[in-house]
Amino acid sequence: MFKASIDIDLLRDSIAALSVIVDEVRLKITPAGLSVKAVDAANVAMVIFDLKASAFDSFSADDTEIGLDLVKLNDILGIVEKKTLVDMELEPTAQKLHLNFGGLSYTLSLLDPSTIRSEPRVPQLDLPARVVLNGQDLKRAVKAAEKISDHMTLGVSGNIFFMEAKGDTDQVRLEMDSNQLIDLKSGEANSLFSLDYLLDIIKPAGKANEVSLSIGCDFPILIQFDIAPAVCHVMFLLAPRIESD
Amino acid sequence: MFKASIDIDLLRDSIAALSVIVDEVRLKITPAGLSVKAVDAANVAMVIFDLKASAFDSFSADDTEIGLDLVKLNDILGIVEKKTLVDMELEPTAQKLHLNFGGLSYTLSLLDPSTIRSEPRVPQLDLPARVVLNGQDLKRAVKAAEKISDHMTLGVSGNIFFMEAKGDTDQVRLEMDSNQLIDLKSGEANSLFSLDYLLDIIKPAGKANEVSLSIGCDFPILIQFDIAPAVCHVMFLLAPRIESD
Amino acid sequence: MFKASIDIDLLRDSIAALSVIVDEVRLKITPAGLSVKAVDAANVAMVIFDLKASAFDSFSADDTEIGLDLVKLNDILGIVEKKTLVDMELEPTAQKLHLNFGGLSYTLSLLDPSTIRSEPRVPQLDLPARVVLNGQDLKRAVKAAEKISDHMTLGVSGNIFFMEAKGDTDQVRLEMDSNQLIDLKSGEANSLFSLDYLLDIIKPAGKANEVSLSIGCDFPILIQFDIAPAVCHVMFLLAPRIESD
Repeated sequence: MFKASIDIDLLRDSIAALSVIVDEVRLKITPAGLSVKAVDAANVAMVIFDLKASAFDSFSADDTEIGLDLVKLNDILGIVEKKTLVDMELEPTAQKLHLNFGGLSYTLSLLDPSTIRSEPRVPQLDLPARVVLNGQDLKRAVKAAEKISDHMTLGVSGNIFFMEAKGDTDQVRLEMDSNQLIDLKSGEANSLFSLDYLLDIIKPAGKANEVSLSIGCDFPILIQFDIAPAVCHVMFLLAPRIESD
Repeated sequence: MFKASIDIDLLRDSIAALSVIVDEVRLKITPAGLSVKAVDAANVAMVIFDLKASAFDSFSADDTEIGLDLVKLNDILGIVEKKTLVDMELEPTAQKLHLNFGGLSYTLSLLDPSTIRSEPRVPQLDLPARVVLNGQDLKRAVKAAEKISDHMTLGVSGNIFFMEAKGDTDQVRLEMDSNQLIDLKSGEANSLFSLDYLLDIIKPAGKANEVSLSIGCDFPILIQFDIAPAVCHVMFLLAPRIESD
Repeated sequence: MFKASIDIDLLRDSIAALSVIVDEVRLKITPAGLSVKAVDAANVAMVIFDLKASAFDSFSADDTEIGLDLVKLNDILGIVEKKTLVDMELEPTAQKLHLNFGGLSYTLSLLDPSTIRSEPRVPQLDLPARVVLNGQDLKRAVKAAEKISDHMTLGVSGNIFFMEAKGDTDQVRLEMDSNQLIDLKSGEANSLFSLDYLLDIIKPAGKANEVSLSIGCDFPILIQFDIAPAVCHVMFLLAPRIESD
């Protein structure tokens, strides 16, 4: 059983964050809320998504799992432009989800969850440095790096957080000290990442007031932010690229 | 003889409505105003357009008929962005139309009306149900149907007006009762229409405060609205599709 | 030596004006400011650009010349959306330009100036008529001409400035008398120009409050305006096309 009502913008932002990694998800439904853990097809990036029951205007659910086509759901929600509530109700057989919003009734066929890759194991990482910055600052650095390369370095050196990209002839670097950052835990950190993934991640992350980056040396980066404070949290784990010289 | 002056937005909206059906029109000019009756090349949809002399800032005309290239005229009017009057004057030979607007003088060559398909006969229809709703509500339903099918059903059941589309797996339905509608004349009505045409028709209809739909069972639908209240009226008649099961 | 700081919008508008003619420029740096003279590859249009030291928030320079890739520089400046200052500093070897703006450090490789076409000689022209008008009026006329032709006539007849284009069947004309113009020096003037170039020139010129046109009979036109009053001036010299009948 699953019956809930949620703000359309929060639902859209949630789908947008998940869509960075996958087009179809196994959505885990419990009385505590909705959650997703998924890796991309190339095994480079992982998303850990948590939407609490308290994020909903109304929420009642038993433990269940459904398979959602995110592309289709996003397309459907695009019909209604104004801010509204989306009422969702799962059919007892869990094969269809009824959506009611903006005066429309939409019956969405669900995917068989067993056809979707199962939940990944989340690795335990001990990342020495941690930086909290405004999403816009991260977005600007990634956009700048894109102009000259297809990968960029993120790291911490003393009290300075830096993002850097090198092209064949040009180079771009953004440095932020602890005054410009929201928070900084200094530590040895310097890793290279593919811009393909970072460009997708900054779409949702760029909207967040606070984005937390946990970084090591040639280690995965953990990018965390709230889609809605206290009730909707998302983490991306992105594998490093090894610098070839 | 034809010499008139009209608000550029009203002229643009009139062209937009006619362009749903045809690219070139025989425009009938009389002392009472301008009118067009035209069918599309596939004989599926008809437009009946009426722009009264009182819609103009100034208007003087004898009975005549001219051939207009709507695509070109629309393109020309796009030059000027701000709201302005368009002065029109027909050359005595009726082969050129002089347009003056926004400080520009444009001489538009006209088409020979005899090369354009002649006015259709408008069928007499006795459509049992009639619904009046806001153009935005119609637009939303058509946009939603487009997501999952290439045709949709419009109908009346008791005091409920419904619009419905069925895809291979999904289904969308919008219902409005007499409280949500501007007006409802109940009657047996349930017809299927091609979304190709409806998507074009909702472009002008979506802007109207009141759109009237007259519907029957597997019968053409009559869609009527004002482009400008009391002075510019447009009717679309759209043939039904026969449901194949 | 070159070290300077300038408003990002003024820098962007300057690049936009130069980009009408060339993608790569020899930029002449002197203690008085920056300047460019360049012709396009087809030898049809010339730009003479002058950006005074007083346009900068800070400026110090020795005489030097650098080669700039305008496309790349424009792309880089697009990273930052908000209004900010751009700090520029030339490396002593003049092979790299350091740009600092919006918290980003960008190192731009410069081109070898000797690989870029050298400064053209600016011809002395005695153009009989001169018209000063708002950039928007020029833009509207060029946009209108584009609808029906690939070239247009600009000229003066008595106290009337006119712009005219003739297509195979249609014709458009904009006339402005001395009341509608900012200034008019009457004289024999009637020349035909390619719209390809005028469409590019009106992009920067369309933003100027005052655009000065010096015109003759089948002679080049001189189009002048300020990008920033008193401190950034640009002139375009455009060769006429000869009318073939």
